[in-house]
Amino acid sequence: MRVKCIKCGREREGVEVRCKCGGVFKVEVDVPFSKNLRENFPYVKRWISLGEWNTPSIRVEGFTYKLDFLNPTGSYKDRGSVTLISHLSQLGIREISEDSSGNAGASIAAYGAMAGMKVKVFVPSTARGGKLKQIESYGAEVVRVEGTRDDVSRAAENSGAYYASHVLQPEFRDGIRSLAYEIARDHGWKSPGEVFLPTSAGTLLLGVYEGFRHMVSEGVLDRMPKLVAVQTEQVSPVCSKFRGIEYRPPSRVTSIADALVSTNPVLMDEMIRVLQETGDCVVVSENEIMDSWKYLSRKGILAEYSSAVALAGGRKYEVSDPVIVLTGNGLKTL
Amino acid sequence: MRVKCIKCGREREGVEVRCKCGGVFKVEVDVPFSKNLRENFPYVKRWISLGEWNTPSIRVEGFTYKLDFLNPTGSYKDRGSVTLISHLSQLGIREISEDSSGNAGASIAAYGAMAGMKVKVFVPSTARGGKLKQIESYGAEVVRVEGTRDDVSRAAENSGAYYASHVLQPEFRDGIRSLAYEIARDHGWKSPGEVFLPTSAGTLLLGVYEGFRHMVSEGVLDRMPKLVAVQTEQVSPVCSKFRGIEYRPPSRVTSIADALVSTNPVLMDEMIRVLQETGDCVVVSENEIMDSWKYLSRKGILAEYSSAVALAGGRKYEVSDPVIVLTGNGLKTL
Ligand SMILES: Cc1ncc(COP(=O)(O)O)c(C=O)c1O
Ligand SMILES: Cc1ncc(COP(=O)(O)O)c(C=O)c1O
Ligand SMILES: [Zn+2]
Ligand SMILES: [Zn+2]
Repeated sequence: MRVKCIKCGREREGVEVRCKCGGVFKVEVDVPFSKNLRENFPYVKRWISLGEWNTPSIRVEGFTYKLDFLNPTGSYKDRGSVTLISHLSQLGIREISEDSSGNAGASIAAYGAMAGMKVKVFVPSTARGGKLKQIESYGAEVVRVEGTRDDVSRAAENSGAYYASHVLQPEFRDGIRSLAYEIARDHGWKSPGEVFLPTSAGTLLLGVYEGFRHMVSEGVLDRMPKLVAVQTEQVSPVCSKFRGIEYRPPSRVTSIADALVSTNPVLMDEMIRVLQETGDCVVVSENEIMDSWKYLSRKGILAEYSSAVALAGGRKYEVSDPVIVLTGNGLKTL
Repeated sequence: MRVKCIKCGREREGVEVRCKCGGVFKVEVDVPFSKNLRENFPYVKRWISLGEWNTPSIRVEGFTYKLDFLNPTGSYKDRGSVTLISHLSQLGIREISEDSSGNAGASIAAYGAMAGMKVKVFVPSTARGGKLKQIESYGAEVVRVEGTRDDVSRAAENSGAYYASHVLQPEFRDGIRSLAYEIARDHGWKSPGEVFLPTSAGTLLLGVYEGFRHMVSEGVLDRMPKLVAVQTEQVSPVCSKFRGIEYRPPSRVTSIADALVSTNPVLMDEMIRVLQETGDCVVVSENEIMDSWKYLSRKGILAEYSSAVALAGGRKYEVSDPVIVLTGNGLKTL
């Protein structure tokens, strides 16, 4: 599978993190589809596995929930980490850096640990909470950086270790295709009506898009589902752009959906392209998020607030056969 | 499937919690084995499911780990709750009580919530921590009781609601059979050499025993694996009795393995019988538990201390093809 720059089309050389043109790289999905799902990732020769994939789907009162928070580190990010870390491990990379104090950081730390890598996770000096403890438990070195979110990223990028950014690395985003395959399989190899996705940096939306696109172009599915990105009022740059509204980020994000923080996502243009082709975007309020979280909890389903966002979106949308992806484990934010 | 008293053999009438003779009830596994695993629980007509079962197995450095902490509420208890709550729901029971501030309480609260039941969870007034928050998130009423552990149990038993005790209820223990089936399936329908189980009240050990016994008597497996109960130094009544040593509980249990607290388990005689037939018992120290927990974490596997106990046992045992059951999610105790 070739890896090319989204912007200029140039093929990636070696392990470039970003294209010289400023564009982001992407894995071209040019393989035949296989129901033996791991075969759809032929660049992974040896899976550094922690037991990811094959998460349950349950149907409750009109919605199908894909319980992706039951991945090994408690979030869908494991789908991206397993392909990225397996790939990097095959290339002999032994030291990596990442910038995330959340689910992505925890996931990369865990898979890096299993691969025997040295993992440095750069976080804002103000970061705290269960996810940070989780990252530390996996033995990653946590490096606190004063300054803005961009300062943290720069520190991770220039740390000397290979920058295994979950946002920039094409093999991370590409791993998320597996989620689309499973949703289709759970649905008897049919497309659901809608798939609701909490959206921040866009790896989830873009990865799921690629997976469904692959199945449609290979004739496994006869149409795309509608992919509905759901954002919070505070962090809604994608929905704003999609609707042609100006977006002004708050000076500080205080939403209970604390995993959704990308006010200026690098992958914006890709997301807008995908939504225009086959999706939609919904903004939800804090109250709507809390109501959805409570509803789920009172059914015995403990997800993160950031995941309940997807249901909040589904509840205010006209749906037919909707799938709600529950992305993060509520145990992390108790 | 008939339900009988372990002690006097009398068949259970209705929903008796305990036999008049003081004995505990047990489900007789008298059905043909089916690889369509749910068929081995014919008394469940409608599964109140939260996506339990089919947890991953991974092999790392000589040990196979059954990641049962990836069940929906973060512990193997969901295997017991799904059968018990489905059964009670079928009988029309709408209000239940339970006494556990730990994984069992959380699991019963979640499945009870999905079933639309009113759930009261009785806990010692001193209980706190993530698991209690988890129980509350599911909407259960938490009732704090002053006094001893026995006082808490008595309050739960006499609360007016049906006492859905995870220790006494035969359908809870019976649900744990599913774990044995999956271990065998993960092993290509062969018995592993040993299965290491953290052991406290004994539902895990006895349930897993019944599952393997079923497969052996049905000719699916040609022999039993060795079932190794693992206990902490502080809470080792089973290992003590098994070795003929006197056990004196400490005045207060302070082990990091805080889910293993049964100093005087009701199911003691059953456990000893099973261990004498086909098992063994190992005691591990606090340091050994911590070393095993760290080892797992540094491989990207975040389990509870109480679960790392199983590996601590496996590490000091002469093994051939060992399975370590990781019972609880480390996110709960971060
Ligand atoms: C729980 C959870 N859900 C959803 C998302 C959104 O994913 P993305 O940033 O790829 O859009 C994240 C990202 O951090 C997350 O942690
Ligand atoms: C994480 C964990 N492991 C093991 C056990 C032991 O199971 P049992 O009490 O059935 O022996 C428990 C019981 O609470 C538990 O919570
Ligand atoms: Zn380019
Ligand atoms: Zn009796």
